[in-house]
Amino acid sequence: MLQHILNQIEMPDRQLGLKAQARLDRLTKPVGSLGRLEELAAQYVMITGNLKPTIPRGTVFTFAADHGVAREGVSAYPQEVTPQMVLNFLRGGAAVNVLARHMGIEVRVIDIGVAYDFDSVSGLIHKKIMPGTNNLLTKSAMSREQAEQAIEVGIELVSNVVEQGIGMIGTGEMGIGNTTVSSAITAVMTGRPVEEVTGRGTGIDDAVYRHKISVIKEALAFHRPNPSDALEVLSKIGGLEIAGLVGIILGSALARVPVVLDGFIAGAAALIAARLQPKCLGYMIASHQSVEHGHQVLLNHLSLKPLLDLDLRLGEGTGACLGMNLLCAAVKVMTEMATFDEAGVSERNP
Amino acid sequence: MLQHILNQIEMPDRQLGLKAQARLDRLTKPVGSLGRLEELAAQYVMITGNLKPTIPRGTVFTFAADHGVAREGVSAYPQEVTPQMVLNFLRGGAAVNVLARHMGIEVRVIDIGVAYDFDSVSGLIHKKIMPGTNNLLTKSAMSREQAEQAIEVGIELVSNVVEQGIGMIGTGEMGIGNTTVSSAITAVMTGRPVEEVTGRGTGIDDAVYRHKISVIKEALAFHRPNPSDALEVLSKIGGLEIAGLVGIILGSALARVPVVLDGFIAGAAALIAARLQPKCLGYMIASHQSVEHGHQVLLNHLSLKPLLDLDLRLGEGTGACLGMNLLCAAVKVMTEMATFDEAGVSERNP
Repeated sequence: MLQHILNQIEMPDRQLGLKAQARLDRLTKPVGSLGRLEELAAQYVMITGNLKPTIPRGTVFTFAADHGVAREGVSAYPQEVTPQMVLNFLRGGAAVNVLARHMGIEVRVIDIGVAYDFDSVSGLIHKKIMPGTNNLLTKSAMSREQAEQAIEVGIELVSNVVEQGIGMIGTGEMGIGNTTVSSAITAVMTGRPVEEVTGRGTGIDDAVYRHKISVIKEALAFHRPNPSDALEVLSKIGGLEIAGLVGIILGSALARVPVVLDGFIAGAAALIAARLQPKCLGYMIASHQSVEHGHQVLLNHLSLKPLLDLDLRLGEGTGACLGMNLLCAAVKVMTEMATFDEAGVSERNP
Repeated sequence: MLQHILNQIEMPDRQLGLKAQARLDRLTKPVGSLGRLEELAAQYVMITGNLKPTIPRGTVFTFAADHGVAREGVSAYPQEVTPQMVLNFLRGGAAVNVLARHMGIEVRVIDIGVAYDFDSVSGLIHKKIMPGTNNLLTKSAMSREQAEQAIEVGIELVSNVVEQGIGMIGTGEMGIGNTTVSSAITAVMTGRPVEEVTGRGTGIDDAVYRHKISVIKEALAFHRPNPSDALEVLSKIGGLEIAGLVGIILGSALARVPVVLDGFIAGAAALIAARLQPKCLGYMIASHQSVEHGHQVLLNHLSLKPLLDLDLRLGEGTGACLGMNLLCAAVKVMTEMATFDEAGVSERNP
């Protein structure tokens, strides 16, 4: 199924981007004076294939999963925080809930691999592939089949909400240990040294930071994942929420809706998705530049330029909410502003 | 009256900022992980003096005025665009209208010195001091009394809306020729060379750009304004919308509400306001980094760090709308997020 989906993804329509820019140039403002908002509007037109787009409603998918590597002591927080934060998301008390409400965006929370039994707790989307990954120091985080299953969960979720009229997708995640995994993926996929792509996650001290780097190096030496086989990288050293996000990205490209990436973890998923199908890059919007320094490296690698730089390092989809609001603003600029003709405003001096 | 107002302005309450940060540190997220949103929330508490703030409603004041220097051919657009855009603002077709609507912000448009008779056109706030400034190449742009009057207009406007429950002010402006004037003010107030603080405004070509620089140099050589006398600078080489914005800034500080600065023109007003009363700096929030390179110079001079860098160069209050939305988001984060205790989430490892 995955290969079939990958084959169906098409590039955004570049010609339509030129037409969108021509429309933007007729609006009552100096040409190009709204900068990146104009770029966003044009990208939205290219993605959707619609020169007169409606204002999209948005959904953020926040995937939660645990990581076997957490037991190596690479995080500032205990693993039980993953399910605790899931319950916090469902009650609306987390940062992503507050920012999503502020921006009029819906949050959907998915258990794709938390090491905790939520039973049938309501509000949660139950898609657990396994109760946390294996410890990548000693074995593959997951099997190739499990990675594919998790990707397919993401693709299906996007397909369902797009059918319900959602026109803009945001990525979110929660999983103690997931910056470790994302640094490992980034090192492999970009070829950069581990030190250069590893940060302090939720806020670890110097000793834990050095330990985190050595854990990643040991895992990479053990698995030697082949960067040209993205599914191998994902299954050997990845995470289930990252696999779910790969699906979100591919599903958005398939459905021709923009996918607004959150921070570093989303970026790791973007590296995998772009290797599986480079055409999906045109559907990505990088919401912000995270404090995690691996994020800068991977955004450069993908030639994505973040919209915001607000020293965020929380994840959950918080940055995505801010980026989605800018995207909506950009679409409104294009569709609601008066043209020079309509407003009777003189054009520039000859 | 102005001196009396200046004497009444007090610094934001630094102690309360520490208490706000302590509250932010109890919320279910790693300490500091929301970066500049946390800084904004703490600044809002310091400004308002309220540790449990309500979510502010916002108003953007868009001042329109003409500039005698426009007849020197320093802009890409004819002067008639100023009143035409005022009418566009009133009909809701300009970029600031679209972005303000998107963010739930009210726009108020003020004729403080447009060279056009609007009669009693409704929706416009009629506060014309004079129909455009004098050409600063040959005489003072305005008298000292006129500058003070325009400042007092701004102060009074803020006072009125704050009484009506507005808790957040944004600055906006429209005036063909006003980047020329703002560059002149920036050169004088920061002591930097004219070339370094002069940009291409609405999009002038190389020849007009060189001419713009020589006009500014000639004006500065003629007036030799004293940078320690901000009212002298404002009246000799300023603009009426800039004077109005000085009043908006001072009025916000007086009323203890945050003032979200738009771009370069707002920055020129901030230079004047901060020289009149340095205590008002703590009430300023720089919404974005403009493409105009004088803006970076003046923000550094004022030690203000812009929230956004989206290659905007439009003015009107467009960037302020985006910044005001981030400010609201930050206040909501502080007031709506669950604490670790409330959510039953474990704290960091010992």
